[in-house]
Amino acid sequence: MAGEPQVHLVGAGPGDPELITLKALRVLRAAEAVVYDRLVSDDILAEIPDAAARIYVGKQGGTHSLPQDEISALLVSLARQGKRVVRLKGGDPYVFGRGGEEAVALAEAGIDFEVVPGVTAASGVLAALGVPLTHRGLANGVRFVTGQCGKNVPLDLNWASLADPDTTLVVYMGLAKLPEISRNLIAAGMPAGQPALAVSKGTLDDETVVAGTVADLPDRVGAVHLAPPVLIVIGRVVSLMETLGRDLVRQLQDNP
Amino acid sequence: MAGEPQVHLVGAGPGDPELITLKALRVLRAAEAVVYDRLVSDDILAEIPDAAARIYVGKQGGTHSLPQDEISALLVSLARQGKRVVRLKGGDPYVFGRGGEEAVALAEAGIDFEVVPGVTAASGVLAALGVPLTHRGLANGVRFVTGQCGKNVPLDLNWASLADPDTTLVVYMGLAKLPEISRNLIAAGMPAGQPALAVSKGTLDDETVVAGTVADLPDRVGAVHLAPPVLIVIGRVVSLMETLGRDLVRQLQDNP
Repeated sequence: MAGEPQVHLVGAGPGDPELITLKALRVLRAAEAVVYDRLVSDDILAEIPDAAARIYVGKQGGTHSLPQDEISALLVSLARQGKRVVRLKGGDPYVFGRGGEEAVALAEAGIDFEVVPGVTAASGVLAALGVPLTHRGLANGVRFVTGQCGKNVPLDLNWASLADPDTTLVVYMGLAKLPEISRNLIAAGMPAGQPALAVSKGTLDDETVVAGTVADLPDRVGAVHLAPPVLIVIGRVVSLMETLGRDLVRQLQDNP
Repeated sequence: MAGEPQVHLVGAGPGDPELITLKALRVLRAAEAVVYDRLVSDDILAEIPDAAARIYVGKQGGTHSLPQDEISALLVSLARQGKRVVRLKGGDPYVFGRGGEEAVALAEAGIDFEVVPGVTAASGVLAALGVPLTHRGLANGVRFVTGQCGKNVPLDLNWASLADPDTTLVVYMGLAKLPEISRNLIAAGMPAGQPALAVSKGTLDDETVVAGTVADLPDRVGAVHLAPPVLIVIGRVVSLMETLGRDLVRQLQDNP
């Protein structure tokens, strides 16, 4: 395919296999080697051609089967073998997907690549719950941060800036750091009653939702087991879930 | 279709018709009435069944052909006529799409609806430019705000919170307010040399990119005519465009 880039960094979307884009599916079906993460669903992996090499790099939370440098080196190596390579990630490759690091490695190696964006978890998970990311009078903007960092390292975030109650705050991979996030936001001025949610496996059939406030969400989450990936949402928009949420969500609220 | 919601609020993605999701395309092809915006591309509108009613509500920037209340009332009315309705919006319906307001109107009228998320402009436009939204060492998060408000009304945003140089700031519909945004961010402590971009018609063939800093972007943008929609991006990740951008972008930088 003349003019087609050698490597595509592709977002698979939030989980539901119907939330992949037409372009992502097209390049996946033309792939000769696919390097993929744990966050990609089986239904999407089923679209990989039988003849293509499949390489699982198992990235999830702080644990990687393969260090990031080696994933980047693998992409360069596969491309140099002349293969059409797809690097398939959950969500969007450029939102906490470390796609930028892989892109830099490819660019430095002189390999032509293209990024195929995906529906990021925040959009996908909140749409399924009926909760808008922004809403007149409740949130004039939205912000994404990651809770991922070393196990015994405190999160290095600008808490004063994050404690803006007019902005919906979405924390990717924030489960382990939820108590620290809650404590720091409240210390920086976030109202303790600010509505908050934790969503495990959002958009999938075995989704679990825990609702509360920024103050009590850590205890509520601590009382159940939430399987990764977990998305944390803090903001007044969460109060719309009762009005806008579909039946599944209402059941979960009734039986937490 | 038993169990299918009567109304779908659907995101069409950032412009490129291949960046729509499989689910969005499926519900669009089953629609009996489609209410759409100016931000939806012709190639996507071509997927609407011939027999379906098409209603253009022409929303763009501050100008609506139809006020928001009337759009919501129209959706309720079409649903009560028993039609399968698709409300088709550019980007993601829940990110500055006022989808939440339409959802509330539908919920209050007792109409079953579902939100189909889309790739939001920030993800789509930056992927096409090669610029990641987050990147280790350059941006530990990303934030979306809107520059849309009344013509002679100052933007009511928390500038101190927004002036965080470690966060990528994306302003939707920010062209008219760009001088005000630039001035307020710098006054609140954003470094004047923070890299910045304005992108007109991102992901489409007639895309235009203007690059600069938060301080000089208003003058650079003022020197050319940018057609809407325009996305403004302020953050250190913009500095990666030269390394990661594809040929189209490099040409535009050479010939601004």
